[in-house]
Amino acid sequence: MAYFDAASAAPLHPVARQALLAALDEGWADPARLHREGRRARLLLDTAREAAAQAVGCRPDELVFTSSGTRAVHTGIAGALAGRRRAGSHLIVSAVEHSSVLHAAEVHERDGATVTRVTVNRSGAVDPSQYTAALRPDTALACLQSANHEVGTEQPVAAVAAGCRAAGVPLLVDAAQSLAWGPVEGDWSLLTGSAHKWGGPPGVGLLVVRKGVRFAAQGPVDERESGRAAGFEDVPAIVAAVASLRAVRAEAAQEAVRLRALTEQIRTRVPAAVPDSEVVGDPDRRVPGIVTFSCLYADGEALLHALDAEGFSVSSGSSCTSSTLTPSHVLTAMGVLSEGNVRVSLPVGTAAEDVERFLEVLPGAVAGVREKLGAPAPATTVRQDVLVVDALGKRCPIPVIELAKVIGDVPAGGLVRVLSDDEAARLDIPAWCDMRAQEYVGEEPADGGTAYLVRRLT
Amino acid sequence: MAYFDAASAAPLHPVARQALLAALDEGWADPARLHREGRRARLLLDTAREAAAQAVGCRPDELVFTSSGTRAVHTGIAGALAGRRRAGSHLIVSAVEHSSVLHAAEVHERDGATVTRVTVNRSGAVDPSQYTAALRPDTALACLQSANHEVGTEQPVAAVAAGCRAAGVPLLVDAAQSLAWGPVEGDWSLLTGSAHKWGGPPGVGLLVVRKGVRFAAQGPVDERESGRAAGFEDVPAIVAAVASLRAVRAEAAQEAVRLRALTEQIRTRVPAAVPDSEVVGDPDRRVPGIVTFSCLYADGEALLHALDAEGFSVSSGSSCTSSTLTPSHVLTAMGVLSEGNVRVSLPVGTAAEDVERFLEVLPGAVAGVREKLGAPAPATTVRQDVLVVDALGKRCPIPVIELAKVIGDVPAGGLVRVLSDDEAARLDIPAWCDMRAQEYVGEEPADGGTAYLVRRLT
Repeated sequence: MAYFDAASAAPLHPVARQALLAALDEGWADPARLHREGRRARLLLDTAREAAAQAVGCRPDELVFTSSGTRAVHTGIAGALAGRRRAGSHLIVSAVEHSSVLHAAEVHERDGATVTRVTVNRSGAVDPSQYTAALRPDTALACLQSANHEVGTEQPVAAVAAGCRAAGVPLLVDAAQSLAWGPVEGDWSLLTGSAHKWGGPPGVGLLVVRKGVRFAAQGPVDERESGRAAGFEDVPAIVAAVASLRAVRAEAAQEAVRLRALTEQIRTRVPAAVPDSEVVGDPDRRVPGIVTFSCLYADGEALLHALDAEGFSVSSGSSCTSSTLTPSHVLTAMGVLSEGNVRVSLPVGTAAEDVERFLEVLPGAVAGVREKLGAPAPATTVRQDVLVVDALGKRCPIPVIELAKVIGDVPAGGLVRVLSDDEAARLDIPAWCDMRAQEYVGEEPADGGTAYLVRRLT
Repeated sequence: MAYFDAASAAPLHPVARQALLAALDEGWADPARLHREGRRARLLLDTAREAAAQAVGCRPDELVFTSSGTRAVHTGIAGALAGRRRAGSHLIVSAVEHSSVLHAAEVHERDGATVTRVTVNRSGAVDPSQYTAALRPDTALACLQSANHEVGTEQPVAAVAAGCRAAGVPLLVDAAQSLAWGPVEGDWSLLTGSAHKWGGPPGVGLLVVRKGVRFAAQGPVDERESGRAAGFEDVPAIVAAVASLRAVRAEAAQEAVRLRALTEQIRTRVPAAVPDSEVVGDPDRRVPGIVTFSCLYADGEALLHALDAEGFSVSSGSSCTSSTLTPSHVLTAMGVLSEGNVRVSLPVGTAAEDVERFLEVLPGAVAGVREKLGAPAPATTVRQDVLVVDALGKRCPIPVIELAKVIGDVPAGGLVRVLSDDEAARLDIPAWCDMRAQEYVGEEPADGGTAYLVRRLT
């Protein structure tokens, strides 16, 4: 059994476990109290803050602990926007930020402000000059992740930070996926992190606000954490989180090389071993442990269960695994295939044998899922010179499967018109055309859904 | 060494520790994921929710876990106010609520709404008819704690809930200090709690919103905890928290009797053993483990340190222990003496010998502090028939000490005018008059502070 979903949550690091046990004995009391138990908790909290600040590369009084990475993001964005109210309310985010950033942006938008979502290339990265071109005189805040949580692509944070600095706009960096590997480069203004991504316990996030950055915490606050994170500090979890951060950092240089080699194997061997698959994300500028690929004619959730049955825990950005039936906003923004999507994110210490076995098992798992999805006789009719595939009411990957089945039935230059009401089709049909060297003509509204037009070229 | 500050934070219950260790192994993964680790975490989370709901007396789908009791209060108040926006924005709280409630009320007030703070009697309890008289047609929400965190007084929640229900106004009950002892009586609408008050780990609060109560979560949310508490659930801590709640509930009936007898001893023996001391809070309607008293001519912080040196950890609501130099809002609202204030809050399992030793040590500790505060020759001048004590720049308890020293110098019927710029004097001088059967005439503005007028009667 191998757990390959570290980007969701890493298993507790042994050092974190030890630290937690010790801190539960020593640090359970209220650090705001003057008695010995309170003073002990305060000492542990102060020490943890110093160590965390050192790892992040900031001053201890710039760093507060929050109850989660999500909370750090929400607090950081709301406080920075409020602190810059006089400059304006315009907010910039990249289109591939974590949902916590996008949710905060949506709230800001509902309050009447303008949000610019900077697009990314097919690798998932923003272009620094395109990003900074979005800066306006009334821009209050810009947000950019250090690395993407679904495909692992690193963002050009330093270049974007320099552009923001020149414009006098603070940049908030969501560093959740990269803090385990090192401090974030560049002249950023705010930074957030999440302990359970680096082997700490859940329940601990961190928010850094550089001195000189205008910040006005929103909502009710109290005297804790510099008035930026209300409520009793979870000292034992904080101590464990920081112990884990130090431990993974100590091994980071060595482990990065090892994990990068393992994910590189997946990157190169999957396309060879699994027909009609595509690895997405930047091949070089990426965090060491994450690799993501998509498999045509397969369903992400079924694939996830098939791999689970083989002892591998992965996640998927396919619409099929989500209750909302819309594919991952990251894959959508990248314009890459979302069907049969699998994200492998290796925890620190992953054994090479486990990756080897995964690569052995994967082709069979994909084939099994494809076979089970089977070959429903497509309901096709030829209308004039156009072959129509009615996939209304059918979910991904069925529309693409039906398209693939009939493309050979029209002559070169002929058109296939796929009727679909599945959101994923909008992404997957153009992606399929790309992979199959067919021409994607475009979409148009149709009765009960959308018609996607594909011209056979080969 | 004895820890008597359970109302701030109780030490981790052994059952919670065991549950935490097990859940760190089984429940660290993301409960929103479909792989086996995710499903295991989900199962633990669902089971914990059911058990917590049973202990609280609600349906599992009415209860969400938050990252702290403070967070539960902030989320609950903001969501209930927003849900009732059409009815109005008026908010009612008692004057002795926990600061998390009062901070939320202040934010609401800054946003332009009206807040009514219902006063309490000298025992710290609201009067139900006075509370419900504050209900208005535009009242959106009413808040009342189940028991007070500083003096232990229980509030008449059931009567107030009935009044609110009749008026169609939801009542939010902050049950942080009473959930260990049993469910909250009455027909309340929302309820909050905090795990580290009942021996759970820090980092877990709970928020209950009864079905049918209008509620609109504010700020960015996600798909977690019914959209009411964003961010990765801390499943191990939640499991531990609920295990602890069940454990303390199982012993509650028996332990309540035992702790009540111990605090009753403190209530009766302190006034006899410590001259010029006053026990505050309701003698009968109170939670079992909390007892609070104040000592004239003593300084809360010095007393706390003296007791700490003797091995007892207590807290204090005296202004002297707070960086803001204003005495506890609870003692202020009750109109009782705040100087030399000590709160003893016994954790479950407190040994009778420890309480006995505390009672032996206390008189000496108070005497020592009083002696150290000494007898600075008061700067007094007689102006006409009034003796003026200039205590400007001196902190509690000095103004009262100086008053006590000179009261014998004026004839019966004569006046003493105490000049002070310490906020605590406003509370402590009238309280001293009460205890000493002298007449408190009133206050008036004076150069550099306030003049408090006292007439000698005896």
